[in-house]
Order: sequence, then C-alpha cells, then structure tokens
Amino acid sequence: MAGENEEAVRDKQVILRDYVSGFPKDTNMELRESTMKLRLLEGSNGLLVKNLYLSCDPYMKFRMTKPDVPDYVQAFRPGSLITGYGVARVLESGHPDFKKGDLLWGLTGWEEYTLITAPETCFKIEHTNVPLSYYTGLLGKTGMTAYAGFFEVCSPKKGETVFISAASGAVGQLVGQFAKLFGCYVVGSAGSKEKSYCSLPNFIVLKVAFAAIFAKKVDLLKNKFGFDDAFNCKEELDLDAALKRCFPEGIDIYFENVGGKMLDAVLLSMKLHGRIAICGMISQYNLEQPEGIHNLTNFILKRIRMEGFVVSDYYHLYPKFLETVLPQIKEGKIVYVEDTTEGLENAPTALIGLFSGRNVGKQVVVVSHE
Amino acid sequence: MAGENEEAVRDKQVILRDYVSGFPKDTNMELRESTMKLRLLEGSNGLLVKNLYLSCDPYMKFRMTKPDVPDYVQAFRPGSLITGYGVARVLESGHPDFKKGDLLWGLTGWEEYTLITAPETCFKIEHTNVPLSYYTGLLGKTGMTAYAGFFEVCSPKKGETVFISAASGAVGQLVGQFAKLFGCYVVGSAGSKEKSYCSLPNFIVLKVAFAAIFAKKVDLLKNKFGFDDAFNCKEELDLDAALKRCFPEGIDIYFENVGGKMLDAVLLSMKLHGRIAICGMISQYNLEQPEGIHNLTNFILKRIRMEGFVVSDYYHLYPKFLETVLPQIKEGKIVYVEDTTEGLENAPTALIGLFSGRNVGKQVVVVSHE
Repeated sequence: MAGENEEAVRDKQVILRDYVSGFPKDTNMELRESTMKLRLLEGSNGLLVKNLYLSCDPYMKFRMTKPDVPDYVQAFRPGSLITGYGVARVLESGHPDFKKGDLLWGLTGWEEYTLITAPETCFKIEHTNVPLSYYTGLLGKTGMTAYAGFFEVCSPKKGETVFISAASGAVGQLVGQFAKLFGCYVVGSAGSKEKSYCSLPNFIVLKVAFAAIFAKKVDLLKNKFGFDDAFNCKEELDLDAALKRCFPEGIDIYFENVGGKMLDAVLLSMKLHGRIAICGMISQYNLEQPEGIHNLTNFILKRIRMEGFVVSDYYHLYPKFLETVLPQIKEGKIVYVEDTTEGLENAPTALIGLFSGRNVGKQVVVVSHE
Repeated sequence: MAGENEEAVRDKQVILRDYVSGFPKDTNMELRESTMKLRLLEGSNGLLVKNLYLSCDPYMKFRMTKPDVPDYVQAFRPGSLITGYGVARVLESGHPDFKKGDLLWGLTGWEEYTLITAPETCFKIEHTNVPLSYYTGLLGKTGMTAYAGFFEVCSPKKGETVFISAASGAVGQLVGQFAKLFGCYVVGSAGSKEKSYCSLPNFIVLKVAFAAIFAKKVDLLKNKFGFDDAFNCKEELDLDAALKRCFPEGIDIYFENVGGKMLDAVLLSMKLHGRIAICGMISQYNLEQPEGIHNLTNFILKRIRMEGFVVSDYYHLYPKFLETVLPQIKEGKIVYVEDTTEGLENAPTALIGLFSGRNVGKQVVVVSHE
C-alpha cells in the first residue's frame, strides 16, 4: 500500500499545560513536537489539513479554565491540544464536500497538520480574492456573529439609534460598521468596567496603561471605524448620564457585549419597542456572583425585547452574509485591521496579548505561508 | 330645543380622596352625588353611556398613587373620578361606529352615567349570548392580555412546557387554560414573594390568613383550572429546586407576572430557545429599589428571548381572539369565575378586597341591571 511508504512528518503543537486561573500566562501553554502520517485511514470521512492561519479569540480563555458551572464552550484538558478557528488547506479528503487542494475555515488544532473529524462544521472558501486570513475573523465566525446579531436578532430599521458596548472589540467594531452602512446612528463604548483586569498582576501600572489604551480605542471608534460618537466608560462617573448625552431621544438597539452596570444603565435609555441582542457579558464572567440588574420593569414600560444568541444558530445565512460583505470589502467600505504574528511557536504569546490589549485589531497567527 | 326640557339625572360617582400610600383603603375614596343632563352637546363625537358593570383591577392601585417615576398608567388626581374598564349601554352617540342602544366595553368612569370622549378606544359588543359582565375581563382586557401574551409574545408550540407565576390571578389563570387547550404542559405558582403584603397593617394575622388563601389557590389551579401541576411559593424554601422538580426537562415558556427572585430562579431552568413574556412584575412595584437579577448569562447559554408587552399593542387581534375564545366558552372548555358586588357604593370595598385576596375570581361591580 502507498501509505506504508509515506514518511511521518513533524507536527508542532500548542498544548494546554495547566488550567488557567485569572488570565492566561505563557506558562499555561507549551510547545510539543509530535509526528503525523499524512494520510487518512481507510473509510474515514474526515479531512487531513495543513493549517495556514489561526485565530486568537478572548473566549478561548474560558476553554482553558477548569470548568465548574455548565458553559457554552467545552473546556480543554491539561496535556491536550488547544483548538480554535483557523484557515487550512485540504491535503486528503474522505468527505464528499471537500477535495484535495480546497481551502476551508472552521475549528482546527493549534498545530501544523490536523485531522478534522467533523468536516460538516467547516466552510469551504470559495472567494480567494481577499486576504485568506480574513476567514479567521471578518469573513468567519466574528463577521457572522456581528452580521447575525445585528440583522437577525436586532431587526434594525434605517435611521434607528444603535448603541454597542465593548465596541472596539472584534465583533463590536463590525456591528458598528454594518449599522452605519445600513443607515443607523451609531455610538460605541470602550473600556467598560471589566473588573477582571483587577486580577492581573501589577494592577496599578496596568491601570495607567489601560487608560491610554481606552482613550485610543474611543478615538479609533470615531475616527477610523466611523462611529457617530463614542465614550470611554472609565472616564464616565455616571453611565446613565453618558447614555442620555449620546442618545437624548433614546436607544432603539443595544448590542450587548459586557452586561452588568452597563445593561442596567442602558435599560433606562431604551426607546419604546427597543431591542437588545446579547452577544456576551464579558464584565460578568470573572465574578463570583454576577452583578444584579435592577431596571427590568422597563421591559414592560417600553415593550423591550431582549435575546441572547449564538452564531452557530445562524450559519445557514453564511452565503447571504458573503453576498453582502464581500462587495463592501472590495469597495473599501469596511475597515478591518489585523495584527499578525508569525509562527506557531509565538501563538501562546499572541493569545496572551489579547488580555492586556496589546494587539491592534484582529490577532492572527500565521502557521504557514504554504 | 328638546334638550331644554330634559331633566338632569342623579349621577353617583366614586372619587379619589387622597393619594394611596401602600395599599388602598376605604378612606382613600369617597362617594359623591352629581347630576348630569342625558344629552350630548351639539357636534360632539363622544358617547353618552349608562354603566352596567365595572372591573376591579390590581393595576388601579398605581393610578391611585402619587406618581414620581414615569409609569405606563396615568395617575388619577385627588378630587377626581376613578376610571377603569367597564361594560356600558350607549344612550346617545355622536360617533359613526356606535348608535343608541349599542353595548360596548372600554375605559369608562366609576359612576352611573359617563360621557366617553374617546369612543375609538371602546369595543362594540356584538356577541350577547354570554354573560355581559365577561366583557370586563375574560372577553375584555384581561382575556386579550392572556391571549396576546401567550400566543403572540411566547410563540408556543404544542407539547412545550409552560410556567406561569401568579397563576391564580385574572390573567394567569386564563394563560394556563389557553396553554392547556393548545396542548402544552402547564405549571403555575401562587403566593409569590410579594413583599408588598408586609406593608399591610396587622401583618402577622394576615400572614396566617394568606397561607390558607395561597394553599386554596394552588388547589384551584390544579383541580379547577386544569393545570398539570402547581406550587405555593410561600412553602418553597428554594424556588430553583421547586422549578427543577416541576420541570425536570426545563421550561420552554415563562409567563412572567411577578419578577424578582422568581425570574432569577426561572432563568436557571429555561430550555434552549426559551421565551419569556413579561406581563407584570408585581413583586417589584412596592420596593424602593427593585431586586437584582443575577442569572442573565443564561440568555446567551440558552438563547433566551424575553419581551415586555402591553395589551393595547395587540387590540387589532380582538376579532381573532373572539373567534377562538367564544366557542371555547360555549363548549364549557374555559373555567371563569366572577365575584360580583352589587352597587356602585360598594365599589371601593370591592377594589380594596383585591389586595387582601378576598375575592374569588374576577372582581366585578354591578352598577345597573338596566
């Protein structure tokens, strides 16, 4: 058999060494060299792929943390491979939807070569006249999250007012741009009261650094991403007053990324028949008990609709999404910034950088230029 | 002119004497005798009606309270007439939709005769082969609230699990019956932690009385209204455990009448893609600061949709509602209990009785048998 003559190749891998407590550190991960035979087992319907780009996402922290409560992302185990979204080239296919040479994006391993056992969760890349790395974010899960959350969950109408918290985040900055292109009035906040930062070492030094980062983010929202207005939560003593200032007539749509005090303040400013899409509640995840939300009677007074969503429920809209967004990218209507790190061996540092806000734009790791 | 020969008739009225603080008392209202000429002014498009039945509703308490925050019901003023939903006979009509002799239901005065200045908010009664008093509740605002909240806001599917808080209330008992007739599994709670009762005088004595009332209500839910199960919140130390016991597989639909701790517990038991319709939050209205809700991250984990609603947004569905409910009433499929008080002079006592749970079923005041 041909397979018996094939050489096993080196497969560098990033492994979780220990569960993360607080924020991920370099020492929570390690590089391991493994070997892999580049062929599929007889009868497999999997895919053997070569990884090209990997996505660094904040949610990965939760998968690296010892699970205690049910979570919507499965936890990694110490000693096992980190996985995440990436772009890869198919080397061998046992699945009818993919053939050798195809490009795809989807869940893959933080390693050089991966055996994908659930090819039905991957998307074939058909449009290659954009940077391939975009499929780790703008044209992948991040972009679809912003698109589905805004257009499907928020049911926007032209001319409506839109507020986005954590608006400088990967999803938030796209929601803002989609909303502007659609014809809405858009305001974003950055530097929301993520208490989690307090658990970082050298908190006081970092606090000063964060102040500068958040000021920069507010500037980016207004001057780079084209938001109508933006504010820095760290500088606002009274979130309710900040929202009233930005939205004297109230908020039609709130795209929720942070939860806690921000949600409570937003409820006071929502307009009649306002809609809230809950994408995340980043300010709450590190708290022993989440903060209480007190202003819920506004749901009745203002007939508010609020809905939590997960992007995987909306992947059937992916072709429609591409139809909308690809032309906007080609016409330069969407601003998308990537921060690229070369080499799998630098992936842990790139991931950790997310939590100190070191990256500018979407953090991508280049595993191979082929 | 004919009008000059008309005698002015006596018009007994119920007046708000003082703003209510805590719960309404007899002394907050008084009876006044006025006179009224039974004719419309030339060119008026109003209706002159004779009131037959008046509805006593818990929400009226809020209209009797001095307003401090914006509210969704307009406050009465001391010295002025109490108004509410009722059934009346048209004596004179200046509006093309109504003629002399018609029956209607809608907002009217707590008096013998009323000049209705906004006839467009009233509904002509076309079906009189049911008790006319039903149009103060089951076939009026209460029924429409239950119908719109359940069928429009909750988007139910046959076989789904439905939980209703304050289920023995006027709306709750109808939601439960609509849900059962539709093919759902229905559980209700009674005696929810309405802290408001604590502000009543003689609290300890009342506590004992309430225990009996709530036990009775749970019994009614199961044995009279056909709920699959019911529990008494006052007897449950752990609401989460009670819900887990009643819904081992979780809750698809929550019809929210109470808010606070109950909502927080329900969020833990909601199923994937669960829906919550917020009709009221009775446990929160008398608190200085509403209780905090902590379990909102479940909105993301379970893709929950929650929506506040007000019945007036759904009145266009009234004909469809009658089409559904009238046959069910005639076939005896809906249990509806009324507690009737004779005479306008007894209306204040009937209204006050609501807040000590004295009434059994919908509290109606008969102003006139014609």
